[in-house]
Amino acid sequence: MEHNLQHTISLLARTPAALNALLRDLPEALTLQNEGENTWSAFDVVAHLIHGERTDWMPRARTILQFGETQAFGPFNRLGHIRESQGKSLAQLLDEFARLRSESLSELRTLNLQPDDLARRGWHPALGAVTLSELLATWAAHDLTHLHQISRIMAHQYRQAVGPWSAYLGVLQCAGHSAP
Amino acid sequence: MEHNLQHTISLLARTPAALNALLRDLPEALTLQNEGENTWSAFDVVAHLIHGERTDWMPRARTILQFGETQAFGPFNRLGHIRESQGKSLAQLLDEFARLRSESLSELRTLNLQPDDLARRGWHPALGAVTLSELLATWAAHDLTHLHQISRIMAHQYRQAVGPWSAYLGVLQCAGHSAP
Repeated sequence: MEHNLQHTISLLARTPAALNALLRDLPEALTLQNEGENTWSAFDVVAHLIHGERTDWMPRARTILQFGETQAFGPFNRLGHIRESQGKSLAQLLDEFARLRSESLSELRTLNLQPDDLARRGWHPALGAVTLSELLATWAAHDLTHLHQISRIMAHQYRQAVGPWSAYLGVLQCAGHSAP
Repeated sequence: MEHNLQHTISLLARTPAALNALLRDLPEALTLQNEGENTWSAFDVVAHLIHGERTDWMPRARTILQFGETQAFGPFNRLGHIRESQGKSLAQLLDEFARLRSESLSELRTLNLQPDDLARRGWHPALGAVTLSELLATWAAHDLTHLHQISRIMAHQYRQAVGPWSAYLGVLQCAGHSAP
């Protein structure tokens, strides 16, 4: 399906500032807590976004433009964020994400993609044929899935404190966790 | 359950800036679209947050401190946001929300609430006895439920465009909608 690339770029450009406004200098009781064993904290999510910026989105776009379907995307390491975040503060991660995203979008704008480019296909190792348009739309939706996740992780820290109101808060009923 | 009021204030203080960074000047295809009939757009959600600021959170806190359980909270009009938003732009709503939230938190800080105050009980017309602590925790979790909702509403606009990646995006599987 086609989508509006300018809208997608608008959204992608806003994510670092939105996460910065939400998370910077927030108490660690909110940013370093997760939803239980083997789940991520808000800190982990920002590190994951950094890892995606380095290894997923623009690298895959380049693979499509250069090789089409003849070369499958390299694997994406969902635990790659651990390496990205070691020894860093959340403030450092937020700065790094903003810088990398800005570089990615600068490269994307320079490509000046036309409808024919957006229709080009690449090969995803699990999903098969995908278009460049789908990849770029997924990049934006992926930002949103992680903003959705961060809201849920932080709301989880309030699960007991809200008392009977928990029944009214949709975020506490969410089972929309991303697949591995 | 007890909760840390200073953490809650930190979170409440950040929501207007986070929504501003995410939504201001974003294309209307993302901010005015909803998830289908009788659902809200991001614009509607900001208007709802404004309505809550005027009629829900601090007014209910005052009711608890003044009347305890002897006076039930007034009803909250979940459609009150329609009046709040008529004829306004999203930029105006974002400004208004930031101003009202700042006033609410200024009043909250001035109250200088102590543990005994936070344990005071009020009466919710449907939930029965609730504490001031629960009300304030719910205020923060309510911000998060709506940030979660806005992420989901905007991701919904990408449902077709992401193609086969939809299977991997948790936000597209979310059924954590708030109860009326």
